[in-house]
Amino acid sequence: MSSELHFGNLSVSIFGESHGGGIGAVIDGLPAGIELDTDKILRFMARRAPKKDGMSTNRTEKDMPEILSGFFNGKTTGTPLTAVIRNTDTRSQDYGNIVYAARPGHADYTGYMRYNGCNDPRGGGHFSGRLTAPLVFAGAVCGQILEKRGINTCAHILAIDGIYDESFDTLDISEDTMESIKCRSMPLIDESKADEMKERVREAAADLDSVGGIVECAITGLPAGVGSPMFDGLENRISQAVFGIPAVKAIAFGKGFGFAEMRGSEANDPMYMSGGTVKTSSNNNGGIYGGISSGMPVIFTVALKPTPSIAKPQKTVDFISGQDAEIIIKGRHDACIVPRAVPAVEAAANIAILSYLI
Amino acid sequence: MSSELHFGNLSVSIFGESHGGGIGAVIDGLPAGIELDTDKILRFMARRAPKKDGMSTNRTEKDMPEILSGFFNGKTTGTPLTAVIRNTDTRSQDYGNIVYAARPGHADYTGYMRYNGCNDPRGGGHFSGRLTAPLVFAGAVCGQILEKRGINTCAHILAIDGIYDESFDTLDISEDTMESIKCRSMPLIDESKADEMKERVREAAADLDSVGGIVECAITGLPAGVGSPMFDGLENRISQAVFGIPAVKAIAFGKGFGFAEMRGSEANDPMYMSGGTVKTSSNNNGGIYGGISSGMPVIFTVALKPTPSIAKPQKTVDFISGQDAEIIIKGRHDACIVPRAVPAVEAAANIAILSYLI
Amino acid sequence: MSSELHFGNLSVSIFGESHGGGIGAVIDGLPAGIELDTDKILRFMARRAPKKDGMSTNRTEKDMPEILSGFFNGKTTGTPLTAVIRNTDTRSQDYGNIVYAARPGHADYTGYMRYNGCNDPRGGGHFSGRLTAPLVFAGAVCGQILEKRGINTCAHILAIDGIYDESFDTLDISEDTMESIKCRSMPLIDESKADEMKERVREAAADLDSVGGIVECAITGLPAGVGSPMFDGLENRISQAVFGIPAVKAIAFGKGFGFAEMRGSEANDPMYMSGGTVKTSSNNNGGIYGGISSGMPVIFTVALKPTPSIAKPQKTVDFISGQDAEIIIKGRHDACIVPRAVPAVEAAANIAILSYLI
Amino acid sequence: MSSELHFGNLSVSIFGESHGGGIGAVIDGLPAGIELDTDKILRFMARRAPKKDGMSTNRTEKDMPEILSGFFNGKTTGTPLTAVIRNTDTRSQDYGNIVYAARPGHADYTGYMRYNGCNDPRGGGHFSGRLTAPLVFAGAVCGQILEKRGINTCAHILAIDGIYDESFDTLDISEDTMESIKCRSMPLIDESKADEMKERVREAAADLDSVGGIVECAITGLPAGVGSPMFDGLENRISQAVFGIPAVKAIAFGKGFGFAEMRGSEANDPMYMSGGTVKTSSNNNGGIYGGISSGMPVIFTVALKPTPSIAKPQKTVDFISGQDAEIIIKGRHDACIVPRAVPAVEAAANIAILSYLI
Repeated sequence: MSSELHFGNLSVSIFGESHGGGIGAVIDGLPAGIELDTDKILRFMARRAPKKDGMSTNRTEKDMPEILSGFFNGKTTGTPLTAVIRNTDTRSQDYGNIVYAARPGHADYTGYMRYNGCNDPRGGGHFSGRLTAPLVFAGAVCGQILEKRGINTCAHILAIDGIYDESFDTLDISEDTMESIKCRSMPLIDESKADEMKERVREAAADLDSVGGIVECAITGLPAGVGSPMFDGLENRISQAVFGIPAVKAIAFGKGFGFAEMRGSEANDPMYMSGGTVKTSSNNNGGIYGGISSGMPVIFTVALKPTPSIAKPQKTVDFISGQDAEIIIKGRHDACIVPRAVPAVEAAANIAILSYLI
Repeated sequence: MSSELHFGNLSVSIFGESHGGGIGAVIDGLPAGIELDTDKILRFMARRAPKKDGMSTNRTEKDMPEILSGFFNGKTTGTPLTAVIRNTDTRSQDYGNIVYAARPGHADYTGYMRYNGCNDPRGGGHFSGRLTAPLVFAGAVCGQILEKRGINTCAHILAIDGIYDESFDTLDISEDTMESIKCRSMPLIDESKADEMKERVREAAADLDSVGGIVECAITGLPAGVGSPMFDGLENRISQAVFGIPAVKAIAFGKGFGFAEMRGSEANDPMYMSGGTVKTSSNNNGGIYGGISSGMPVIFTVALKPTPSIAKPQKTVDFISGQDAEIIIKGRHDACIVPRAVPAVEAAANIAILSYLI
Repeated sequence: MSSELHFGNLSVSIFGESHGGGIGAVIDGLPAGIELDTDKILRFMARRAPKKDGMSTNRTEKDMPEILSGFFNGKTTGTPLTAVIRNTDTRSQDYGNIVYAARPGHADYTGYMRYNGCNDPRGGGHFSGRLTAPLVFAGAVCGQILEKRGINTCAHILAIDGIYDESFDTLDISEDTMESIKCRSMPLIDESKADEMKERVREAAADLDSVGGIVECAITGLPAGVGSPMFDGLENRISQAVFGIPAVKAIAFGKGFGFAEMRGSEANDPMYMSGGTVKTSSNNNGGIYGGISSGMPVIFTVALKPTPSIAKPQKTVDFISGQDAEIIIKGRHDACIVPRAVPAVEAAANIAILSYLI
Repeated sequence: MSSELHFGNLSVSIFGESHGGGIGAVIDGLPAGIELDTDKILRFMARRAPKKDGMSTNRTEKDMPEILSGFFNGKTTGTPLTAVIRNTDTRSQDYGNIVYAARPGHADYTGYMRYNGCNDPRGGGHFSGRLTAPLVFAGAVCGQILEKRGINTCAHILAIDGIYDESFDTLDISEDTMESIKCRSMPLIDESKADEMKERVREAAADLDSVGGIVECAITGLPAGVGSPMFDGLENRISQAVFGIPAVKAIAFGKGFGFAEMRGSEANDPMYMSGGTVKTSSNNNGGIYGGISSGMPVIFTVALKPTPSIAKPQKTVDFISGQDAEIIIKGRHDACIVPRAVPAVEAAANIAILSYLI
């Protein structure tokens, strides 16, 4: 059950391979009777789609999800909601020379070992970043249900190759700010950083290389008391979901690794009453104590490694023949996956959060 | 099911409150017929116990686990293995003034909201760090099974309050190194850092304050091909388990947030053949690609926030009366939880890793 | 995870062996703040306890559950509720000759094969009927929560060795009827059948033999719309729980196997309006359609095989030496398990039903 | 997660509605590298397809499953295997008059209450018997994997409307017998009963009525020691899966309800050694003790109620207007679902059995 999230009464099952017949998601456990705006789902998915801006793959997939079940008269039925996305623009020949010569940084070798060489290696198969398309679909659905309950989620690029955007105000993020970020071609708080970031990506690409970065995500409107202690808390569920995105290698809530150099008197968020509600005057803990929401914005950051597919020659092995080898990866690849990962992180958060509320 | 880890055929269920009748763990799904060394389990648990060195609580609990089931003639039976640890040295009166005045940084308020005020608040109740005792018990059991299969796990203090130990050699860590670290009263690679770290903790304590830190954990001997793509990989399971430890706020695999400033050509680990086995000449990815082990050591770090219980006056709220308040936390508390968290991180890793192998 | 029920947000984990240190249950996912009447729990458990009436084992265990966690100030805390029952009156020597000579009809041989000979064989170990004590504890807890919501569950002996009690009125069962049945030493609707049933059991016992029977269970007050289609419906959850009771070999909802000789026009329950509520004028389907409650009583029956432990000589094998053998089972055994299974069936139903409502 | 089976490391997720875009199954956790014979899958599915013999619906669906993922170069990849079956021959207008007037014996009313009136009611929606098509697909896949391990499953019609086929020989069933049964248009051991059964069905149909029956299923080749005690045994998993088939109302293992009138000395299966293997000279327990296989054939029977869709006028309610009503069900319906349920029962058993072996 590698490809399923199972959170309480909600499950999301993702299937498919990059170059197979299709990919998709089955969402089981949604409440019945929720109106879904399919155009809005497509707009959410479009944020993940490759853009012809020199930063991402030139592979053009319409990636139109077909909803096969669970949706009737414009509303969720409560029974499993399934969407399938056909794979159409696949050029398997691009991958001809990499079936056995493992691409460093990818799961070619580990997947081969896990599946005795029987998994579909074309385009990364089930390990492909393409699998974030159905994840984003599921997250778009969950997000619409959250919004109806006054809960909003927004992720942005916090850093690409050392160039930093502003961080979210951890005490208050308006819906307007969130909406603006989602509309931008580069999802940033400070748009002025876009050019510098793009420049870095273009430089890396020109150098046949790639860059990594950080995505920050905020959830607002979540009331206090959502989550659970120990193994089923907000941090547990969010991280289980977020590590489902290829290239994610770290997650931090609130100050994260910064806590290592703080004192308790700084780290603890002082509490006060505000109009009958408990608030904190700082939010170092990212809105979570003991796995449970405090009512303040939930804030976490996610590190993404540089796209492993680079056109530079790399040392590798041919793991069939057992020989050392060199590889030059052809094909259409993002020199920086961070912008396209933003909606995927948001989607993972949406699924995790909604799972507590149904 | 907040307090259960469910990984494939293995489950670990933790129960209890800090000042209730007892705490414990039920481990279901262990293989039958595995000899367990109970003395070794106690030694593992002793690493978590508070030490009278001025760094940790003076609460003295023998914390002797009584094995009630699943263990017969010195071996696992294959049916649920249960251990109970009695709570004996509880001084509930120490907590008299904090039932309603939320301790900042703790789960007092969030737990109250989650459980409508009905959870046991004494000593943090089910949110207490004391719950890591049964976690460590379970991890000690799983660790012994892993060792019989040539898999070793070791965690150490990477940092306390900005003082850093060496990092693990990511390419090769000997069993001797691991064994030495586990025997030290301060689990460090470079023991010479112990005094400086202790000094920092004592300073903070003297200042009625506390400090945070980082734990690094390594798993060696894990063959290539263990794990799964997407939501059930090594990163997903390890992080779900590790966030079960109170005070953990971040987790990073391999270079973690460092990837954000790396290029693909640096981040990708070059592969080569070594005596018929695939190896990598760097291990930036912490031995995991696509959620699956590469055969190289698995390496991750975990950030722990400073102990929230500090004796300094803090601004808070009385969430029953809805008034602002000030709190001074009495009781016996660790000024730095990091040394005692080390075996807990190891335990969480052991459970996660073993779950793939049964 | 053989010994856990996992139903939505509720889990019940049962542990222990007949002659080990103790047995118990961890219930995770209960709502917080529910007052529990512990005397009433003990009365429920007493219905399962052996009675000195010649029908059941003379083993006398006080079977007092000690609640270790999850219960504070008379209410559930919402965190895992754990009860432990010590094993005290164990006479392992009675089982001396049956460790290797498999008791026919028992799990001695299958358990040995499942656990490579490492499970605790004393008294049936984890397969013992004694494990229904924590199941009944968990069911008693769940039952109290159901009662507060107007849902009542009651089981009775429908048949012992061919002597039949009346069946429940499938259209209406009063709380008074249920309460009366629960108070009887033989849980029957028609008490006049008690003597005849007891006589049959005594005859079998005198003949060094045992008898089987049927338990019928009803759940009233369950509103329409509870359950789910396909694999998670009322029939699925109830049967998964009920087959956890040793000796249960069949379960039937409504007319059950009787449907095989009915026509649709008879089997379909005609519907009508009654005071604004949908009712059916027959209830052949046992209150369940498509896995979901109709608002009519839920009715099911369960077949229990005769106690396998009989004092007659039986042909068996010594599965260590691989020789044919003969066995005469000593020890204290129920010649009929049916009366003591009644609260266990009720408990299983309570757990299954409550799981949908939290 | 109503429509998922979660057994250890295997999950089967079924989705779709009778008159929606399509139905299908996602199978996660299959071993990698298993060759699958797709023609054989289609032949298995053809056994479920309606036959133009007057017994079943005239709805003609090709029901060709399209495998979208998890299958590469003729083998399982180990990643989720997904099949989609398009709905093509839907005549929703046939159901025009039954949207609000609940069909007695169906889930119209209970589904409405469960999903607040938002589930897709056309053709029964997600409750339709049509959903057994993906179940049978999944069972066909699992069955091929079992066969490669020497495990064979076969179900047959044991009874229709009181006409009985022979029962399986519980001690020995040859593969030839199984193969023959599967090839017959009426899956019977004694083919001579086919005409009488068909005649009963035709009579009922002519009378605008329907009939029920019993399916018996056997699993051979399963070694001793497969299963688990308490809640995760063979009886638990098989029954959870089998109750996923619409119209199933009871399940019995071995003698089932017959145990209620047996003595222990009859019911216990005497054991003996045969060529180094433990066997039993009777198999009243259906090859299962304590939830675990004995090595003898696993035998169970399943009761199916008569098809609720009958053309006779029936008393019902219009649950929107809250008025009593009468209904005459048009459309193409099986007067007896039993023959088409046979492969579905086999499929459910295959999934349950395979889940223990991976």
